[in-house]
Amino acid sequence: MAKTLRKALALPPGPVDLSSYESDATTGFDESKDDAPELMEELGEELAGLQERLFAHGQSGTSSKSVLLLLQGMDTSGKGGIIEHVVGLVDPRGVHITSFKKPTSEELSHDFLWRIEKALPGPGIIGIFDRSHYEDVLIGRVRKLADDKDIERRYGAINDFEDAYVEGGGTIIKCFLHISADDQKERLQARLGDPAKYWKYNPGDLDERALWPEYQKAYEIALERCSTERAPWFLVPSGRKWYRNWAVAQLLLEHLESLDLEWPKADFDVETEKKRLATS
Amino acid sequence: MAKTLRKALALPPGPVDLSSYESDATTGFDESKDDAPELMEELGEELAGLQERLFAHGQSGTSSKSVLLLLQGMDTSGKGGIIEHVVGLVDPRGVHITSFKKPTSEELSHDFLWRIEKALPGPGIIGIFDRSHYEDVLIGRVRKLADDKDIERRYGAINDFEDAYVEGGGTIIKCFLHISADDQKERLQARLGDPAKYWKYNPGDLDERALWPEYQKAYEIALERCSTERAPWFLVPSGRKWYRNWAVAQLLLEHLESLDLEWPKADFDVETEKKRLATS
Repeated sequence: MAKTLRKALALPPGPVDLSSYESDATTGFDESKDDAPELMEELGEELAGLQERLFAHGQSGTSSKSVLLLLQGMDTSGKGGIIEHVVGLVDPRGVHITSFKKPTSEELSHDFLWRIEKALPGPGIIGIFDRSHYEDVLIGRVRKLADDKDIERRYGAINDFEDAYVEGGGTIIKCFLHISADDQKERLQARLGDPAKYWKYNPGDLDERALWPEYQKAYEIALERCSTERAPWFLVPSGRKWYRNWAVAQLLLEHLESLDLEWPKADFDVETEKKRLATS
Repeated sequence: MAKTLRKALALPPGPVDLSSYESDATTGFDESKDDAPELMEELGEELAGLQERLFAHGQSGTSSKSVLLLLQGMDTSGKGGIIEHVVGLVDPRGVHITSFKKPTSEELSHDFLWRIEKALPGPGIIGIFDRSHYEDVLIGRVRKLADDKDIERRYGAINDFEDAYVEGGGTIIKCFLHISADDQKERLQARLGDPAKYWKYNPGDLDERALWPEYQKAYEIALERCSTERAPWFLVPSGRKWYRNWAVAQLLLEHLESLDLEWPKADFDVETEKKRLATS
């Protein structure tokens, strides 16, 4: 690739019109689709190597760096698939996954960022958010779960929150998994057509689907207002699963590379320890 | 295999003499070592399929079943390697890993099982314990971190605790990763010989190594007293990494198979939903 995928997929500043993006685009992918499995294997090895260095620093207490991969998208857009096929490429010890569901009554009694803060990855860890604080300006807005004033306040609160995470050594990769209403229909049909997939289906999914335009609008507002220099949004065309997985793996790789991680130095005298070991 | 690996590796009742077990045994492995990578790949696919069913039930609320893979062994015995190479074979969403370190002051203010109980896997989840409550009768015994009477009490408390977990729908797979003092020496040398592995080394490791016979004795007592019918201990020869990984993967597979998991049934009318979707 001539330029990086993160530059190609980062949303430009200004208003967002999701209808202007094709969900089946393969932006930045220069090979043939048939090469994707091999490319994913290579990406997997590179990712695992860099992740081990990040993890090593966390274990050694030599760096406060961490990475947060945040996944948002309409139902069936592929949050679960990315966790299985991309996150599954690295050592599970270094990964911390949080799936945000409907808030509990305890969570609702606190500010919306309370449960999010608790789930931020510690040093050396790649945190995965399967849904996130953005739900509070998405379903929160569409289903009017808070008053207008409070929804308005949240965009700024999110920007401040993410900025503080980056300030503390975090790297945040926000991926909006873009699919079309037709893509979703096809995938819901697949779920209803296979008893091994019934568990992924919920009749409530169709109630949300009926609000597709409202959700697209809510996403457009959130993407515009919360794409900042330090924490930009990436629009990942997700109509093709193989491309979606490759793109998120590649974004993760580029961000890990930019951390310039060396192995932690020994905090003991290597020769002394070799001698101690030899006589042990 | 004529008989199952779980039968072959389960410790027989009665006193345990660890010196009678070879660390480089390949019990139950009938193929050539060169076939191990391919066998692991096949095992990975089978594991991933069964784990998805387990996870599906957890998500659907249709079963309280969960699995706990508990890893214990001397330093360098391969707890981390198993998590990377075996646990890494399944969907990370369905896995919950807990690495038990030296207890915090808060943890010490509670009973030793307090932090363990909180880490038990929920329905549908495969929990991984990287070290466990057994530390409290291992380092606890060797380093006299509690008085004799309290250490004595703990064996029974552990058996009751594990029994209650199984009673509630849990399956527990306790693996003792058996290595020799020579195996450990070789692996510590490897760590001291490679700057990419310094982070895994701690001078304190040699202080523990100096107590090798005391630790072996503490393990023998724990393995004898806490190998029960419902929660037996498996002795996994771990001198050969490829065999150790295969054996733990195979044990996990056999236990998942014994859960007889079908896909959860739909809790909605499939035809009705198909019609709703078609017009959506």
